Parts: sequence; C-alpha cells; structure tokens
Amino acid sequence: MRKLLRVNMGDLSVREEVLPSEKEPTGGRHLTSSIVSSEVCPTCHPLSAHNKLVVAPGWLGGTGAPCGGRLSVGAKSPLTGSIKESNVGGNAGNALSRLGIAGIVVGGLPADDNLRVLHISADGAELVIDNELKGLGNYDTTDTLQAEFGDSISCLTIGQAGEMRLSGASIAVTDEEGRPTRHAGRGGLGAVMGSKGLKAIVIEKEGGQRPESADRDAFSKAAKRFAQLLRDNEVTGDGLPTYGTNDLAQVINDAGLYPTRNFQQGQFELIDNVNGETLRETILARGGNAKHACHHGCVIACSGIFVDENGEYVSKQPEYETIWAHGANCGIGDLDAIARMDRMDDDIGLDTIEMGATIGVVMDAGLLEFGDGEGAIGLLEEVRAGTPLGRIIGSGAKVTGQAFGVRRVPVVKGQAFPAYDPRSAKGIGVTYATSTMGADHTSGYAIDQNILKLGGDVDPLKPDGQVDLSRRLQISTAALDATGLCLFTTYTMYDGPEALEMILAMTNAHLGTNVDLEWWTELGKDILRKERDFNTRAGFTAADDRLPDFFEDEPLPPHNTVFDVPHDELDTVIDF
Amino acid sequence: MRKLLRVNMGDLSVREEVLPSEKEPTGGRHLTSSIVSSEVCPTCHPLSAHNKLVVAPGWLGGTGAPCGGRLSVGAKSPLTGSIKESNVGGNAGNALSRLGIAGIVVGGLPADDNLRVLHISADGAELVIDNELKGLGNYDTTDTLQAEFGDSISCLTIGQAGEMRLSGASIAVTDEEGRPTRHAGRGGLGAVMGSKGLKAIVIEKEGGQRPESADRDAFSKAAKRFAQLLRDNEVTGDGLPTYGTNDLAQVINDAGLYPTRNFQQGQFELIDNVNGETLRETILARGGNAKHACHHGCVIACSGIFVDENGEYVSKQPEYETIWAHGANCGIGDLDAIARMDRMDDDIGLDTIEMGATIGVVMDAGLLEFGDGEGAIGLLEEVRAGTPLGRIIGSGAKVTGQAFGVRRVPVVKGQAFPAYDPRSAKGIGVTYATSTMGADHTSGYAIDQNILKLGGDVDPLKPDGQVDLSRRLQISTAALDATGLCLFTTYTMYDGPEALEMILAMTNAHLGTNVDLEWWTELGKDILRKERDFNTRAGFTAADDRLPDFFEDEPLPPHNTVFDVPHDELDTVIDF
Repeated sequence: MRKLLRVNMGDLSVREEVLPSEKEPTGGRHLTSSIVSSEVCPTCHPLSAHNKLVVAPGWLGGTGAPCGGRLSVGAKSPLTGSIKESNVGGNAGNALSRLGIAGIVVGGLPADDNLRVLHISADGAELVIDNELKGLGNYDTTDTLQAEFGDSISCLTIGQAGEMRLSGASIAVTDEEGRPTRHAGRGGLGAVMGSKGLKAIVIEKEGGQRPESADRDAFSKAAKRFAQLLRDNEVTGDGLPTYGTNDLAQVINDAGLYPTRNFQQGQFELIDNVNGETLRETILARGGNAKHACHHGCVIACSGIFVDENGEYVSKQPEYETIWAHGANCGIGDLDAIARMDRMDDDIGLDTIEMGATIGVVMDAGLLEFGDGEGAIGLLEEVRAGTPLGRIIGSGAKVTGQAFGVRRVPVVKGQAFPAYDPRSAKGIGVTYATSTMGADHTSGYAIDQNILKLGGDVDPLKPDGQVDLSRRLQISTAALDATGLCLFTTYTMYDGPEALEMILAMTNAHLGTNVDLEWWTELGKDILRKERDFNTRAGFTAADDRLPDFFEDEPLPPHNTVFDVPHDELDTVIDF
Repeated sequence: MRKLLRVNMGDLSVREEVLPSEKEPTGGRHLTSSIVSSEVCPTCHPLSAHNKLVVAPGWLGGTGAPCGGRLSVGAKSPLTGSIKESNVGGNAGNALSRLGIAGIVVGGLPADDNLRVLHISADGAELVIDNELKGLGNYDTTDTLQAEFGDSISCLTIGQAGEMRLSGASIAVTDEEGRPTRHAGRGGLGAVMGSKGLKAIVIEKEGGQRPESADRDAFSKAAKRFAQLLRDNEVTGDGLPTYGTNDLAQVINDAGLYPTRNFQQGQFELIDNVNGETLRETILARGGNAKHACHHGCVIACSGIFVDENGEYVSKQPEYETIWAHGANCGIGDLDAIARMDRMDDDIGLDTIEMGATIGVVMDAGLLEFGDGEGAIGLLEEVRAGTPLGRIIGSGAKVTGQAFGVRRVPVVKGQAFPAYDPRSAKGIGVTYATSTMGADHTSGYAIDQNILKLGGDVDPLKPDGQVDLSRRLQISTAALDATGLCLFTTYTMYDGPEALEMILAMTNAHLGTNVDLEWWTELGKDILRKERDFNTRAGFTAADDRLPDFFEDEPLPPHNTVFDVPHDELDTVIDF
C-alpha cells in the first residue's frame, strides 16, 4: 500500500493519504501531472499558494528494476506557465519508494519567512525550521544536512536561485555519493519550492524496505532479462557507459545541428576540445571516473566524476546538454571552464540548459564576447549574488532576451532549446514546438530516428514524417516517465519488442496488475491529454506550439535549411 | 484624398499609397488595428522584421474639430504580445492630417546599426541617417531636431528606453511648445520603433493645409456646436480645465480604490499632498500654468506646466495616472519628486503607468522602502543608463516581478494596471481583464458609472452589471479612438444624444459620408473584432482575460472586497 504525503505550508501540517490499491498503475509523471492537472488552478501565479509541488517516484521505484529509480517533479512552471514534469536521477526516488511513499504534494504558502526542511523517515514526516540553511548553495546545504542526519540520507534541495524564486532554478537531488549533482532542472521548479519556504526534503534510509511484489519470482526474472537487454544494447551497453551522454557531441556536430553561438551556426570549430572522446580521456588521465551510476540499480552508468588537473573533484562529469549549453552555444571550447559552470549551476541550483542558452543570448546582445569562459562564469556568480544582472540571467533566456532587446531568443513557451538545432533535425523541432513542457528534447527524442537511425530513419532535413515521429515518441515517453525507468532504457526498445514486454512483465509481477501494450499506449496518451488539458485551461493554444520565427527565417549553416514543418501539420500532433 | 506612407526599413524605401476614397470613414485606431491585424504575423517576435509600427491620426484630424488632433500608434506590443493601440495628444496628429497623411506604416528591419530620422514634408518623405541622436533623451532629441529643421516641426521620438528596445518604452510626441511631453505610453511601442532603428519622425508644418471638407459650412456648424457642448459640460468645461486630470485623485481616494503601495491599500494617507487642489495651488503659487491644451484645437485644456520653487520649468503638469503611479502606488506623497519622475519618464521615453507600477513591485520585493522618492528617481536613472537593474525596471512590472520572485504583480496580459483598484470598482476590473490591450483604463472607462455616476450608476462594489457596462464602453471607445477626438469628449455624451450626433455630423460633413448611430456602434464592434482576431491568432484565450489571482484572494481595505465578477460572465464581454 503506497501513500501520498500531503504537506500544507499554510498551516504547516503534514498528513498521509493512502493511494487506492492499484488496478491501474500510477507513479512518476502520471501521478505528478494528474495531481497538478486536477488540483492546481491553471491560471494561478506559479509562486502563489495555489500552486503545488509534486514529487513522485515511478511505480517501479525501489524494486530493483534496472534504471528504475528516476523521480518526477511536477508543478505549474514559473518559467513557462504550463504544466511541468521535470525528471531526475539520484538516490531520492528509490528512498521514497522504499518508505512506501508514492508522492509528496506541497501546497500553500507559509505566513512567515522561516526556511523549512521536510524531514521524512519510517516514523513519519514533519516540517522543521532551519534558518541556518538560508543563502547556502546546494553543496553546503547537503553537507549541513548530512552532518545533522547522517550520510545515508537522500536530499532534495534548492540553492540560492530557488530561494530567490528565479525562473531558471532547479531542484537538486543527491547522487550515490550524497552530492547534489542530479537536477530536476527544467521549468524553474526550484522557484516553486523556494516560494513555499522549503529549502530541503530529507529522506532517511533507515526502516525503508523493498516494496513487496505480488509475484517476486516473476518480477525477478523479468528484471534480470531487462538488465541483460540493456547490457546487450550498443548504446546502453557500450556508448553511454564508455563516453557518457557526451558521446553524442561529435555525431550531432558532424550532422550539422550542434547549435553554436546562440543558434547562429550548426557546427562548432572547437568540437575536438569538447567531444566525448576528449572528455573521457581528460577524466581518465586525471584520475577521475568516467563510468558511474546516478542512482543505485542503474546498469547503464552514463555518469562520471570530473576532476581538475590535480585530481581534485570539480563536478559530476558534465552531461552532453551542459557541455553544449556552456560550450558551443557560447563559443567556449574549454572543458575545465564548462565543468566549473556545471558545478556552479549545481551549487546555485540552476538548469544548465537554460543557463547556457541564456548566456548565449547575452553574448548575442553584445554584453560579452562569444568564447569568453571567464565572463560566462562571472555571470553565474552574479546569479549566486542575486545582483540585478544575476536575476536577469537566473530568470532564463526569455526574460534576458526581453531585458536586452534581443530578437534571436531560442525558446518555446518560455523554455530554452536543448542541444539540437531544429532546422537540421526537424523531428526534434516538432517536439520542441508541441511538447506540453516547452522546448524539451526528452519529451519525444526524434534525434534517434533523424540522426542516429535507431528504430527508424526519418530524413532530418525534410519536413515529411516528422509530426508522426514526434507524436509516437511523445506518447511512449510519457508512459515511460511514469514507471521510474530512465529515458535511456528506450534504446532497448529499438532492438525488438522484448524490452517493452519486460517492462510490462515487471509492472504486472510487482503490482499484481494485468496491463498490456494497448494499455501502455493509452497511459501515454492519458498523460499527454491531462497535460494538454491543463495547458489549454492555462491559456495555451496552437499559437504557442510554434518555434520562434527566426528558425523559419534564418537558414542554418552548413545545410542552410530553415524549419519548414507546416503549422497546420504541427497542429495534428495532438490527433491521437 | 488621403495617403499612407509605407516605410520599409529593410530596403530603406518610402512610398506613398492612396487610401481608397471614403465611403466608410477610417482613421486612428480603426486604421492602425486594421493594418496590424491584416499585415502583421500574430506570432512574430515583436522586435522582428515582421512587426509593423503604424501611426494614424483620426479622420477628423487637422479639420479643426474640437479636441480632434489625437494620434493612434499601433503594432504588436513587445510588452503584451497582443495587438496595441496607444493614443496620444500633442501636435503631430494635426500636422500629419494637414499634409494629407492618413497613416505611416513602418515595417522591416535595417541591415545596419545606423539611427535614422523619417523626415516628412509637403514635398515628400525620406529616411535620413542621424547617428548624432544616439543615446539622447527625448528633450535633447527634439532640441537637436528643432535646431536643424526649425521650431515649427512636430516630432515623434524615442529616448534611451526605445533605443534599448525596452518593453516599457514609449513614443514621445511634441506638444504646442515643441516639448516631448505627450506620450504613446502603453505597450512598449517605443521598443518597436527602436528595433527599426528609427529615432524620430519629423513632420514639417509648411505646406500643410486644412483637409478639404465635403460641406464646409455644415462641418463648421457642427464643430461649433460640439465645442459649445464641451464648454457646457461640468467635467470638460470646468473640472478638467481647472484641476487637470488629477481632479480625480481625491474622488478616487475617497471612494477607496486609489491603489496604494502596490495595490495593498485602497486609500493613501498622504492624499492631501498630491490631490488636484494641491497640484493646482502649487503650480499657480510658483507661476506655472494650470490650464494648457496638449494640442491645437483642444477646447478642454486639461494639461498644464509644472515649475519648481524658482518658477523654472520641470515638466508638463503630471497627469492623474502619473501622480498615482509614482505617488500613492509607491507611497510617495511629494509632488516635486513625482514631477521629476514625470520629466525623467518623458525624457528617457517610458510609460509613467508602467514605471510607477514597476517601482511599486520593486518596493514590494523589499529592494526599496515604500515612500523613498529619491530611491525611485534613482531607479529611473538606472533605466537611462541601461544598467541591468535599469533594464529590468524598463521592461515593466511583469518582468520585474519575475526577476525578483514577486507574487503580487498587477498586470493583465503583461501590462500594468492603471490607477483604479478593480476590487472596489468592478466595472473597470472587467475592462482591465477583457480589453484587447491588457490592463487599460482608457479601453472602457467604467469609473464614470461606477464612481462618478455619469451616464448611469452601477454599484462599484457588486459584480452585477459590470460586464454589460464594460462591453458598452469598450465598443463606443473603440469607435471614438478612430475619429481623432480626445477620449474626454465622451463626457459630453452623458448629457444627451446631441454630442454623438455632432460627431457624426462633423464626420459626414467632412468626408461626404452618410454614417449614422448604428454604423458608429458597428465601427466600434468591428475594431474590437479585428483586435480580438489578432489576439486569438497570437494565442490569447479566455484564460488571458483574467485578473491576477491576488485580486480574487486579498480583500482591499477599506471596503475589504475582492474582485468577484464570475469568470464565465467575463467571457461574455465579447458577445456582441
């Protein structure tokens, strides 16, 4: 029997609510989007008492399902005004599941200015005032909490950005070493947590146990087979563990869609400095770790530890998106500068994609030269200090574009573009335009078929077939985001039907349900419908499902293509 | 025969287009909204080449119709993303009409960074590079232009804010003394002009002549009678000429809807320092001028000249909205500080309403104490200097609220509220919520019936009847904004049907048309429909026709009322 923790910051109460016994599995994004969609007033101010922050592991969380410890964080987004699910690794998802917690729902606003910690253990949950955490970065915050509660805790925390309620603020989740390196980065959810005066959620490990499965043997068998499929797959068994997510950099650059200098070019002349091979070699030569799992039970291990020339810890191994955002997008070809920014983003509590895109806009406005790594680092220091310039940057690319009168601002629904230029991979452009989340590659990763030719081959430069591709991927991704499984497990699905069969087998064996492929697809559609319904009531229309006009006006070198998927075709993404 | 000037900043061409001979009068807001609605891509970036800036006097412009020299400026607004008509006095409307120009349409973006002046004379129009104007405020700009072209020119100019493309930037129009004191303030249209590299539009007087009327005698007779109605009316014949627009301050404060300290109270304890009587006495005691017309042919003369203790010119007599915005809304009860801010806004080229509301938000965020006049002046200096803080402020209340994580932000569609709290005058709340322009009192001035009891009596504290009231006013205002007549002429309409009959008589006598009351109402509806259609295509929905939630949550002293007009009733505003 799983439960929901209902936290009301208005009267500072915490109460438990039992989830109805499951005939229809729920968890992760399905749970966060269901609650936000049904309980949050869609036109409310995201920082008001009406908004709710929902944290939910997937239904496979804590079970030992391979790569099953992901966590969904949902709310109305301060960045986009739309519904938001931000998906994060780290050790909190499993920890919650092992305490029988399916979700935490934080509503209301406190009447005072105290900063609070939500402390969760096997004995229950309570809100504790801790004003000594005020103004601390995520690293100091988790250090302080670990000193108080021990090293085995899992933490969700916000840094200075969340306390300042900046729209680019993330929520950090501790990794296996207890460091705040995994982030629910997108959509400014750290600002929602900050508006509620909640600095941290601390989850005690003690007393937690593996959730009981309806059929343990069947579960174990399916899980084992699923792990094998992950190990056998070329991407999850070799590419990702060897080079991390940055394995992609060279491929995407070669294909001409690696956005460079605020989306002015599609190839970066300093790619050799920042590609996957260079990253791995640098880390290994310095004694770092190039193969590391972001959470217990992950069999891919695409993460790593980046160290400086003296072998001292700097940050986690920066992800592909981060290396692009703080690298090519700002004309910066220096891994050390990028890793320092990754560390700063993690510490201040900022989305690396939003920050890199924002600094690109600042550079385009002429405030800083493209390529100025020290200048870019200085901008993040401004955010930490809460200076006016820092508050502009920390509010993201859209606000920054508005403040500096910039016309070339790569956002959809107010959220910055990830590391793929949609003019040369039009499927991902459809996802950016039509996702319920704003520009988000993880909502429907068309790069697989556009560029990597996994699971299909859709010409990236032509408009044809992109809408169908994106629709299919958006549906299947939504369902996967409910399970607690990592998005990267989808690579196994391109090898044949067995992977999804094993996911359904694990689900049924664990929950005693009897769900099938048809149900799975319906689940994905149901999530998207709930999200779209929220967005519609919040005022979003087809006009918001568009890319900024410069993507239709300015051809991107080297292919010199524009984004030309017809608007009326974009509007058919929702036809399912 | 009237003409349109088509200016393309892309190829730097200017060409003339003849307006079809009139069976249906067009001008002012009807012309700007028709052109923007049909020619501007509703989803375009407001600072892109796709946006067009349209300047149009009314069809009565230049004729000598009393108070007939108003000018409409339209575009897609950088502040709201919606269509925008900003209405302004000063001497440019008549000057254009007297050169036979019904409108100026400026599209495209220049390929270079030069700053240009559009010079218009009886001989034609041309674009001239003038980089010496770069970085100048509106006062220095008009001084420079007058030194070059003579004192009799009319100017539309932008200050530093427009050059920086800030969303709070206005377009200044020179007054009868050639000072840049009249502003198309709302919606950031100065940023559109700035994005096009256009610093000024200079209109030569020489060679201009009164547009020929189809029936001069009939026109003259109707105009004379209309002038008499304006002189006989209590508001336009006495209140406004004696005290200026600030005549309202005491009334609105007494009624408990004078927004104070960022809409936290409805009455200002320092009202005696800033009301109409004090303003008039201060001006007269110092040798200023408390009765002054903003344009030739105005028979109301609600403007004035504010001087300092030594009798030196400071600014125009600040308007009611400005005295509120920089006064009570910021807790500042000092007319001299307010007049200095009025002058700064006019010089930098900023909307006084947006700036006052923004500074109120900054004070609410705790950056500055309420009441700190010198601090507020310092913020405007930051805008002039283009510092990061200045760019936040200059971008308006919404961006400022986002940057500083403020929840109490009085905006609709991104535009700041004017000087009437909608919780205690619910008719104006309906107008704020549902206007095509964002929060805008001039779109449907329900205060007349809610508070002043002119033309009807609708209880301001009850939700009943407010939607009908606002709908009626929005329709009639839209039609009036097409004529070139000042909004204040509507006061005469409350005395009986003769005023509108005279407006129609002047129209028919001048243009040789045969329009009637029914046509007038249809014109208003047609304008609103065109504007709504643009907004719908831009992505606006009923969810955008709402007040911020704090107006529904926080009761306003002294009446302790909230805004409670039902949402579904708000949605019937468009039922016409």
